[in-house]
Amino acid sequence: MYIGVDVGGMSIKAGLVDLNGKIVARQSVVTRAKESESAIIDDIAGLIRDLTLSCGMSMSDILGVGIGLPGAVNDDMGIVRYCCNINFVEVALVAELQKRLDFENIYISNDANCAVLGEVVFGIAKGKRDVVLITLGTGLGTGIITGGQLLKGHQSAGAEGGHMTINIGGPVCGCGKKGHFESYASATALLAQVKEAMEKHPESLLHEVAKNDGFDGKTVFTASKMGDKVAIRVLNRYLKYVGIGLVNFANLFYPEMIIIGGGISNQGDNIIKKIEKYVNKNIYSAGLTPKIKVTVSDMKNDAGIIGAACLAIKN
Amino acid sequence: MYIGVDVGGMSIKAGLVDLNGKIVARQSVVTRAKESESAIIDDIAGLIRDLTLSCGMSMSDILGVGIGLPGAVNDDMGIVRYCCNINFVEVALVAELQKRLDFENIYISNDANCAVLGEVVFGIAKGKRDVVLITLGTGLGTGIITGGQLLKGHQSAGAEGGHMTINIGGPVCGCGKKGHFESYASATALLAQVKEAMEKHPESLLHEVAKNDGFDGKTVFTASKMGDKVAIRVLNRYLKYVGIGLVNFANLFYPEMIIIGGGISNQGDNIIKKIEKYVNKNIYSAGLTPKIKVTVSDMKNDAGIIGAACLAIKN
Repeated sequence: MYIGVDVGGMSIKAGLVDLNGKIVARQSVVTRAKESESAIIDDIAGLIRDLTLSCGMSMSDILGVGIGLPGAVNDDMGIVRYCCNINFVEVALVAELQKRLDFENIYISNDANCAVLGEVVFGIAKGKRDVVLITLGTGLGTGIITGGQLLKGHQSAGAEGGHMTINIGGPVCGCGKKGHFESYASATALLAQVKEAMEKHPESLLHEVAKNDGFDGKTVFTASKMGDKVAIRVLNRYLKYVGIGLVNFANLFYPEMIIIGGGISNQGDNIIKKIEKYVNKNIYSAGLTPKIKVTVSDMKNDAGIIGAACLAIKN
Repeated sequence: MYIGVDVGGMSIKAGLVDLNGKIVARQSVVTRAKESESAIIDDIAGLIRDLTLSCGMSMSDILGVGIGLPGAVNDDMGIVRYCCNINFVEVALVAELQKRLDFENIYISNDANCAVLGEVVFGIAKGKRDVVLITLGTGLGTGIITGGQLLKGHQSAGAEGGHMTINIGGPVCGCGKKGHFESYASATALLAQVKEAMEKHPESLLHEVAKNDGFDGKTVFTASKMGDKVAIRVLNRYLKYVGIGLVNFANLFYPEMIIIGGGISNQGDNIIKKIEKYVNKNIYSAGLTPKIKVTVSDMKNDAGIIGAACLAIKN
């Protein structure tokens, strides 16, 4: 048995994962994001211990623990450089957990790295050697499998594909630089694009939808399904931005499959098909090279836990 | 002994390469670029056979042959999808050469892939596991080593980093699409940028330099060394474009080293230092992650032959 832990800004989720990638037990706690490093590490250690005990096991029954975090992680050194929304800066997370749990076999990585690993080991991309995964959320995370191995870069500082300039001088990114893929294609960016369109177009149905259902990531999808021209235009332009970034990935990594995660992946096959069409039309040497499949995960909310467990399973 | 072949639009160069990466004998022929596929394949086979004979050897004394070509190559299938400036479309080059030479052990790849392989096996990046190489020439070629292995992508269709959009709607690229890294940062792009500046600025020294020395890739460097403000401005803007693309690579691959090839690499350490500074200032998480070295090759014109031989040596 392995343990996978998915650390998020809202909650920390842990699962007992078997060798077939099935979660056989799970527990979670609320992330005390504003607390000290040490308190959060205590929470992670406590969660792992509680999960083990609740299954009538001890740590000696566990083969390995993997942990995925949203942020910059030095996998090989076991250090979290920093973590989005959590008070971690240069934290030796692996060493701290080893001490608290008296357990050696612990691995950490960025959460998008975990997700793509989960997909190639147990998920929709099982056995594939070239796969790109992007998550369109508050930010834009990327996890890449190339030639059968997880792309990490020197000291695991790579795979930061959200911070790829796609338009010089474009909107400001979460990192402070301009024109990055994230600043065009994250869920946050889409919200900003919708908001701007609403200010320009008081006649758009977007206003009505926002008034009735509340303004959120679904607003533009709902209004566009109702035939609102402004919403359709904003959405198509957004999908083109997503496509432009993915074509960049495709030209570099030429994956067999691109997996899209985050809220947008729940908005229907039609959206994913549009992105797939754009990618295959605009890749370099289109027509001479194999078609790239664009799809969503079938692990849904469990990808984080299963993917994290894979860090340990693969080691 | 191995044989490395560097196929270019002007000449085909072959070298007998020993296990230390030294070229112990060499021969070349002019590329009959307008001839049929079959004639060019004959030329390559003839060159390999002649080189072997001239050293008092036969093909049975050769351990392997590697060939680098400027274009899209399916390494695993041994097929050249197409080749810049040479009349190759979907040519089964490996099989054709195996037949002509009655010799099994032949490998092909894109020339930038060969170059970066040569650098990590015998060159300035020897032993490094994460390296990006770009060649700034007529086009913009990219060769990438990530986690110690050559990045190829599915069916070797990846590593086309010149065709990464860095500015939506920018200048037209050689491939017909707009705003690619190649359309801003190739030597061809630099020439276009200089030409545009000359049209706007009849007072610039660029005109005098071009009149005296002829207008070519060196013009802007010469005029900028003479203190011409227009030339300096064009050059700095061009170096920023090179930097923007390289930061994209750095954020994805986080290489220990970036190697720059092509004409610009002969324009002095000052130019390379400027690019290095830009990259390290603009990478994601600058300051928390190791510095990236930007440098030029020390193999000069032999990188193509030695790198091609490495295809066979590494197999």
